[in-house]
Amino acid sequence: MEKKSSFALRLDKIYDWMAEEGIALLMLEDTESRRDQNIRWFTGHPGDALLFLSVDRQAILAAWDINLAKLHATLPPEAIFSYNDFDRKPSKAIAAVAKKLGIPIGSRVEIPSVTPYPLFLDFVGELTDFDILCRNKGSGAEINKFRAVKDDEEIAIIKKAAGITNELIDSIEKNVKSGKIKTEADAALFIEMEARSHGCEGTSFDTLAAGPDRSFAIHAFPTWTNAPFGTKGLSILDFGVKLNGYCTDVTITFARDLDEKQEKLIELTEKAAKLAISMAHNGTMTRDIAAAVDRLFSKSKKKMPHALGHGVGLQEHEYPLVRNSSENDWELSAGMIFTIEPGLYDPLLGGCRLENDVLITESGHEVLTTARIIRL
Amino acid sequence: MEKKSSFALRLDKIYDWMAEEGIALLMLEDTESRRDQNIRWFTGHPGDALLFLSVDRQAILAAWDINLAKLHATLPPEAIFSYNDFDRKPSKAIAAVAKKLGIPIGSRVEIPSVTPYPLFLDFVGELTDFDILCRNKGSGAEINKFRAVKDDEEIAIIKKAAGITNELIDSIEKNVKSGKIKTEADAALFIEMEARSHGCEGTSFDTLAAGPDRSFAIHAFPTWTNAPFGTKGLSILDFGVKLNGYCTDVTITFARDLDEKQEKLIELTEKAAKLAISMAHNGTMTRDIAAAVDRLFSKSKKKMPHALGHGVGLQEHEYPLVRNSSENDWELSAGMIFTIEPGLYDPLLGGCRLENDVLITESGHEVLTTARIIRL
Repeated sequence: MEKKSSFALRLDKIYDWMAEEGIALLMLEDTESRRDQNIRWFTGHPGDALLFLSVDRQAILAAWDINLAKLHATLPPEAIFSYNDFDRKPSKAIAAVAKKLGIPIGSRVEIPSVTPYPLFLDFVGELTDFDILCRNKGSGAEINKFRAVKDDEEIAIIKKAAGITNELIDSIEKNVKSGKIKTEADAALFIEMEARSHGCEGTSFDTLAAGPDRSFAIHAFPTWTNAPFGTKGLSILDFGVKLNGYCTDVTITFARDLDEKQEKLIELTEKAAKLAISMAHNGTMTRDIAAAVDRLFSKSKKKMPHALGHGVGLQEHEYPLVRNSSENDWELSAGMIFTIEPGLYDPLLGGCRLENDVLITESGHEVLTTARIIRL
Repeated sequence: MEKKSSFALRLDKIYDWMAEEGIALLMLEDTESRRDQNIRWFTGHPGDALLFLSVDRQAILAAWDINLAKLHATLPPEAIFSYNDFDRKPSKAIAAVAKKLGIPIGSRVEIPSVTPYPLFLDFVGELTDFDILCRNKGSGAEINKFRAVKDDEEIAIIKKAAGITNELIDSIEKNVKSGKIKTEADAALFIEMEARSHGCEGTSFDTLAAGPDRSFAIHAFPTWTNAPFGTKGLSILDFGVKLNGYCTDVTITFARDLDEKQEKLIELTEKAAKLAISMAHNGTMTRDIAAAVDRLFSKSKKKMPHALGHGVGLQEHEYPLVRNSSENDWELSAGMIFTIEPGLYDPLLGGCRLENDVLITESGHEVLTTARIIRL
């Protein structure tokens, strides 16, 4: 028997779930104002499309760029349409697809939970014969749960991306130390170039390079400038690479000639990272890890102004959540990959963040990346 | 009397509109999954925040990064809060702000039209004492209309950004001709570097550099690789720079050793650009321009698979719409800045697009950028 592709196995999961939930038709949308990597996850097509899945296991893709879709989507050519065929209107497309696939009147049809309220009303108007669902705890949440646990193919890709990231960390350290990287721009462009020459699609997000004058902000604005980098004080470099769609996300802090208060920020951040990673294993609630870090910081009267981490995968931010909030009920399980990124920021002292990507295994964890505090 | 800042004048416009519409409180949101440049337009703060505006002309900003907000937002410090103060929940924040500002019970309160349906239900649940509005033709549409017509300060910034873009076009032409730019990566990195060294925040979007093997796609995927650029056939370079938040957007096509069919694509694209620009003036409906281009192409049995253009400003895609659709009722008026970007694509021949940014003036138009077909 032919081995099923990862894409086919993923589709199987959602078709099974649809059958259990009694959902006849599901629509996914990736568009400029509402990005959704699920279409890529299910089909390989990288974006700007509608994907329709029916409980009788048929998939239809309506793509903005049909040439690109035929190249990338792992669907038969006859299942790929141009979005223009439906006047680029999701509500019109879903009505046409429901008819084409013979979805019985009265069926439950689910649209994305991010559908804006006014657009939701359009769907209701267009699909009067169906029961429209638009729910936070519906198919989108279910797919996110699937995606939070990576399959073997995904783990292999992310490990490869992490390897490239680690090579980059080493070369950046070397080049900052040698004086070849002198500015934020030098660091950011070096990463852009190296990512592509290692076969990546690009970086996971705009590289954030903030020298000592700008590192006080969680995410400096603009993301990088021609300002000095790696000079006296704390410099932050937050970046990731994207390989076959999969993101890494790390932050290195460079430290030069620190005063006592800046040393304290570094010391606490390193301690927090170590503590958090030591707690990362199958069955742990992520909020407990984040709470432990918050407690560590508060003993020194410090407060971290952002979450401790987040999942990484086709998006640079995905599930599981890793934050100290009573509503966060994510429990770690084998196959999850997420960041641990404690950080402390001060308008006068500058900022310090240490971020690595961690994979949960059956027996514990594996830290995939080698970000660190680098002393100059 | 002190001259009002552009920000204050923009706030005046929306406060006046709120009074006319009987809206007591307005919420704007900029967040990772729902970007909204309106907060930057009204306050200068570049992002990740909620902005509340009340009909009695008070503004409150709840920012994810309060240090950054205090640096950038043109609001008094006492009007700037941390988003964490509201547990990072928009529905909780709006309830607290309504109380703080003394918004009378029963008032009309408007939330963004892009609010997902399930989140809309949260607002309704939290704000039981108010009349919640979430409308496509509400405040968001009104602000978009304001923003489609640039004020003098915006025109000055975009002209400066266009000047930088034009310098870049010239240097790219020189470097492709001299052989210094040989690959897609060379072109993309050259633009990244030059944009920043000219004082830009960065590029408007991921530069799209597609050599002859990949130019058939409207937006090649990935946006750039190490593939050859400017070799035999058609190469597309679509890029823009972002200066003080404002975007340019141009596309150059490089042509080398074309066959007759490829020459035809170029000829038609240039003709279409010329025709469209000649029609661009105060009072013209943008759909008439787009329809004229469609007719031109269809005479040669060609079809453009995307819109003819779009507004540019704080976003790389904004209003006015410039497309051939019966629902598009945008009429050009002085101060509008938008792209004209005819293009034709063929899986075998490659693609060709020519995109420039056009400003409508009282007496006609001004083409701000100098993108062109460059023959090698």
